[in-house]
Amino acid sequence: MKIQPVIMSGGSGTRLWPMSRNARPKQFLKLVTDRTMFQETALRVHDESGAYLNPVIISGRKHGAIVTEQLAEINITPAEIILEPCQRNTAAVAAVAACWVARGEEDALILLTPADHHIADAQGFRRAVETGAKAAEEGYIVTFGIKPENPHTGYGYIHTGTQLRPSIFEVAAFKEKPDIETAQKYLSDGGYFWNAGIFLFSAKAMLDELERHAPDIRKFASKALDGSALSGAALRLDEPAFERCPANSIDYAVMEKTEKAAIVAPVDVGWTDIGSWSELDASQNADNIVTIGSKNNVIRTDGPAVGVAGVDNLIVVATSDAVLVARRDNAQEVRAIVEELKKRGRTDLL
Amino acid sequence: MKIQPVIMSGGSGTRLWPMSRNARPKQFLKLVTDRTMFQETALRVHDESGAYLNPVIISGRKHGAIVTEQLAEINITPAEIILEPCQRNTAAVAAVAACWVARGEEDALILLTPADHHIADAQGFRRAVETGAKAAEEGYIVTFGIKPENPHTGYGYIHTGTQLRPSIFEVAAFKEKPDIETAQKYLSDGGYFWNAGIFLFSAKAMLDELERHAPDIRKFASKALDGSALSGAALRLDEPAFERCPANSIDYAVMEKTEKAAIVAPVDVGWTDIGSWSELDASQNADNIVTIGSKNNVIRTDGPAVGVAGVDNLIVVATSDAVLVARRDNAQEVRAIVEELKKRGRTDLL
Repeated sequence: MKIQPVIMSGGSGTRLWPMSRNARPKQFLKLVTDRTMFQETALRVHDESGAYLNPVIISGRKHGAIVTEQLAEINITPAEIILEPCQRNTAAVAAVAACWVARGEEDALILLTPADHHIADAQGFRRAVETGAKAAEEGYIVTFGIKPENPHTGYGYIHTGTQLRPSIFEVAAFKEKPDIETAQKYLSDGGYFWNAGIFLFSAKAMLDELERHAPDIRKFASKALDGSALSGAALRLDEPAFERCPANSIDYAVMEKTEKAAIVAPVDVGWTDIGSWSELDASQNADNIVTIGSKNNVIRTDGPAVGVAGVDNLIVVATSDAVLVARRDNAQEVRAIVEELKKRGRTDLL
Repeated sequence: MKIQPVIMSGGSGTRLWPMSRNARPKQFLKLVTDRTMFQETALRVHDESGAYLNPVIISGRKHGAIVTEQLAEINITPAEIILEPCQRNTAAVAAVAACWVARGEEDALILLTPADHHIADAQGFRRAVETGAKAAEEGYIVTFGIKPENPHTGYGYIHTGTQLRPSIFEVAAFKEKPDIETAQKYLSDGGYFWNAGIFLFSAKAMLDELERHAPDIRKFASKALDGSALSGAALRLDEPAFERCPANSIDYAVMEKTEKAAIVAPVDVGWTDIGSWSELDASQNADNIVTIGSKNNVIRTDGPAVGVAGVDNLIVVATSDAVLVARRDNAQEVRAIVEELKKRGRTDLL
């Protein structure tokens, strides 16, 4: 069994402003370890056994160079770098991935993973992939259900159904981000898992299900790949075709409709979707951070010294041209700041 | 009657870090208006009538150039710029001022004023000086008692005694910064005024009282001026002599001991000692400040954009190399940050 990793690196990460910028979105930043989240992702789906093929990267049109550079730093050779001329959400990415694999290593299972998640236990993650592969080979589109550690209201949940195999279940239902009461109920009821947004499937299964539930996505993704052209070392999807591709998530376009959804659960690998500054640990122990009588703050700087006195539960992020101060329990408001800067035409800060 | 303004510009202003730096302390910053506080002070003691002589500036040894530059910007010619080789507090400055005037315009009254206070009503301030001049001409050392607007615990208070003239009283007592209960009592009792640290006196009166209560301050200040040498356009006090001058405040060394203390009160001119960020108004309406769901914050930047979301009652100050976040009701803690940076040897940030 071969695994074809496909890394989705097209996100913009506005909630991690001011470090995350259009030119260098969060997945290309060193936010958790001394490697970028994109690099950690590439290393996670890489092993010396030969089970994992070289990765395909699907990224924003402006990020070909940064992808190339960051892979070179960790000595990983991409099988392909595919650039999206515009953002069309994850179903389009899955469709492009499936089309690309169908033309080559068509027997490989596609492991479609976001570039901006942190997973502490990479080996445990690969064991979960191995578990899921059995179902994926039978035509299931396999998701990974993270064991919830708390009633998180920022994640989607998956409710497990009939057990198919050890640690593999049919999906009973996908659940939107819940309110806190519902999240607490999920936690106490059991059988509910965080939707990690990571998928394992054969090209055939995905193309069949797209054909059934989202034929235009399959059609225009396929055309976009057919019409793609080399742009430097990368493959650039055909813009007119890709623009016509409906923008939808895999969850909405396929997973909630197909009868082929399966879930590996529980997966317990130290997974975090670094969706906002709140998800990060408290302050780095940095030379240029001074805290006096303060606790439980997320403090980050990529240059300026930061002095914090007498404040708790804040996010403080400093770069040379922009500073963010926000409540840790309301990190979503960062988006509103970015929106306001956009209105003011401050593209230099976006 | 002539007034010889002497502007005390020797402060370091660490509580206004990170904008206030050793090389450019707070009095040389545009914190309140579009002129620096030093410039506002120089303009306040300047009028076209000829009553006010060109000012004498007494400043830190490193700030001769900045004083010259900032006076040139507002077209004021200094009578003298005197540089202190070390800090010896306000009594030494008063002594130097009195010695300097005694050698020239000895009949002029010396108006000794800090460079880092904000006074909204400059004309009202000059009217108060005019009122005080009558007592100063009779040999009183005149202070100015600001009408308290609230039970401020960060200021010293002066209790008025016997009335000497309209709006002029003897000083009954100087009161240290009070606790909140005491400050509230002062406010309800009446007869207590904020000590603005501004003084009006003849050279003879100050020299006599120094001779009586602090003879070493008079002696070494005088020697330091005798031994002074030109340093560029400024006069640099003799270092060995000035170092031997005891460091004490005018209040302690003279005012609390003399029988010649008088006070003009009430003075109601919109006075603020810009001692910390807390004293400043809430955020500037700046292009590069974005606030979302936040109120009552003091936000300042001299370059970087600042985005603030969901926080109240904070101080946020951004410069290109340092950022401060502190509680508005505890702005004193800024000093602890500066101390810690000093310990770490980060002189680049001080």
